[in-house]
Amino acid sequence: MMTNKIVLTGDRPTGHLHLGHYVGSLRNRVKLQNEYPCFVMIADVQALSDNFDNPEKVRTNVLEVCKDYLAVGLDPEKCTIFVQSSIPELFELTVYYLNLVTVSRLERNPTVKAELQQKSFADSVPAGFLTYPVSQAADITAFKAQLVPVGEDQLPVIEVSNEIVRRFNRIYNTDVLVEAEAMVGKVGRLVGIDGKAKASKSLNNAIFMSDPSDVLKQKIYGMYTDPNHIKVSDPGKVEGNVVFAYLDAFYENKEELDDLKAQYQRGGLGDMALKSLLNDTLQNLLKPIRDKRNSITADDALEVLTEGSKQARKIATQTVEEVREAIGILKF
Amino acid sequence: MMTNKIVLTGDRPTGHLHLGHYVGSLRNRVKLQNEYPCFVMIADVQALSDNFDNPEKVRTNVLEVCKDYLAVGLDPEKCTIFVQSSIPELFELTVYYLNLVTVSRLERNPTVKAELQQKSFADSVPAGFLTYPVSQAADITAFKAQLVPVGEDQLPVIEVSNEIVRRFNRIYNTDVLVEAEAMVGKVGRLVGIDGKAKASKSLNNAIFMSDPSDVLKQKIYGMYTDPNHIKVSDPGKVEGNVVFAYLDAFYENKEELDDLKAQYQRGGLGDMALKSLLNDTLQNLLKPIRDKRNSITADDALEVLTEGSKQARKIATQTVEEVREAIGILKF
Repeated sequence: MMTNKIVLTGDRPTGHLHLGHYVGSLRNRVKLQNEYPCFVMIADVQALSDNFDNPEKVRTNVLEVCKDYLAVGLDPEKCTIFVQSSIPELFELTVYYLNLVTVSRLERNPTVKAELQQKSFADSVPAGFLTYPVSQAADITAFKAQLVPVGEDQLPVIEVSNEIVRRFNRIYNTDVLVEAEAMVGKVGRLVGIDGKAKASKSLNNAIFMSDPSDVLKQKIYGMYTDPNHIKVSDPGKVEGNVVFAYLDAFYENKEELDDLKAQYQRGGLGDMALKSLLNDTLQNLLKPIRDKRNSITADDALEVLTEGSKQARKIATQTVEEVREAIGILKF
Repeated sequence: MMTNKIVLTGDRPTGHLHLGHYVGSLRNRVKLQNEYPCFVMIADVQALSDNFDNPEKVRTNVLEVCKDYLAVGLDPEKCTIFVQSSIPELFELTVYYLNLVTVSRLERNPTVKAELQQKSFADSVPAGFLTYPVSQAADITAFKAQLVPVGEDQLPVIEVSNEIVRRFNRIYNTDVLVEAEAMVGKVGRLVGIDGKAKASKSLNNAIFMSDPSDVLKQKIYGMYTDPNHIKVSDPGKVEGNVVFAYLDAFYENKEELDDLKAQYQRGGLGDMALKSLLNDTLQNLLKPIRDKRNSITADDALEVLTEGSKQARKIATQTVEEVREAIGILKF
């Protein structure tokens, strides 16, 4: 059932997408596109905010991410896939919104604070990093998105966007901007194959949807399990065991999985058998995705992005016109 | 003699222009337009950064400032007069440049620091205010301006712009951006008619170029002189005497002015005689300007701004294309 609530979602093109994205967002988006008008943004300009000295990485991954989208089943007939840099109207909104949020509000933002700690900018935080929630407010409001699927850690960014919306509408006595609601997914993060943190390209501990069959197998057989589970007959730990974490996320027969966990904890179930099960599961999941991905040419992806960006820009242009009129900016 | 060095200059449209502007910049611009290709920007978006809750003030003054420009002799055949908000390419450059400057660099900027103190934002500095030097870098570089006439207090802002230029050209291995040189005018500020500070619209102590003859006279006869100079025969002070400050700026016969100062200091020259001299001087200066201003219709100003903005946008679009190519942003 189509509702008129608009969804905005997307990714920074800094690498191929991996199973963490699949579990955290992509799988959900494939469903969302049947229920809502969806805008899916490849956020290349946002990616530049901490990759400004490596634009090549961002550029090459724009097409790769698009291929990943199409491979998992995002359908350009159902959702608008576009590239952020193709919508210069977003920059104009960003500049207007910068006036509506204080520096201290941005500095207090828990998401930004946490990310600053991770990224070790030390004393040299780029201004573009501090202000990225303002740029996200531009992205969200340009398409009048009312639903934004995010992780729990991104909630404060949505809050900044909504504050800007309320402030704008109040100051300019208008209702052109629309508040957005965060859709926090139930499935959280997927652990890395090393068991140490969340799966992430920068930590090099992720299974990419574009990984060939043998690489996938190698990654699964190298997964961290329970270092004290040496012989098959030893009792093993399920908690912190990466193979079980992945089975939890991808193995559909939950009853059978519960039995396997019980058996593993008692002793008598070997890591190899478990890994083989996970390998079958993921090979089955990823083979059609990989095959589809391999059939998509760069030209196919370019065409999708060109058409999607054209459609997205039409909407953003309309919003900017309304925003300019609300502020009362003269037209020459 | 025309050189190819491009000049960028302009004003925030927050009120009519006054004699402080005339002495500090306008008089000079009228000369510059004969020597350099000049871009004169009415910075409405920048004006919004501390007038976002009063856009009406900014909007109405766009045309008023344009009329002031034309009245003092800026000639649209010689210089390009345009409106900042009509060049959305400036916002795009701003967003890219935000990545190339750190928050602490902006916070340490002496110009921004001084203005923050003046403006009493307290704890609520709008992000757009902190980042306005980045937006100025966008303005300067969009037109590849090499000369920017500024007051001494604005030098650190030009420095930020040049830092961004060098960083951009180095990171992206290009020379598309051009450094600018500050042209610091010899004539500094014009004191307010109350003698207390510089002439400024917000302090309500300025003589506007649009002031009618009787208002001008009233302002001159109300000027602060020397409170101890009561009788004509009393010796008077020249220093801090507003009438002499204005004669210094506008009375052309400097020799005669030196004699008058000597006479005033000895005693025997009354304030009324001096004010009458200043009144004649300024009435003569401002009458043709006022007459010309009154002959300019809103439509005339609109036409100048429309044509100028069209020309300016062509150049800015070209620069943005070069910038995108240097960063390596894909085109869809």
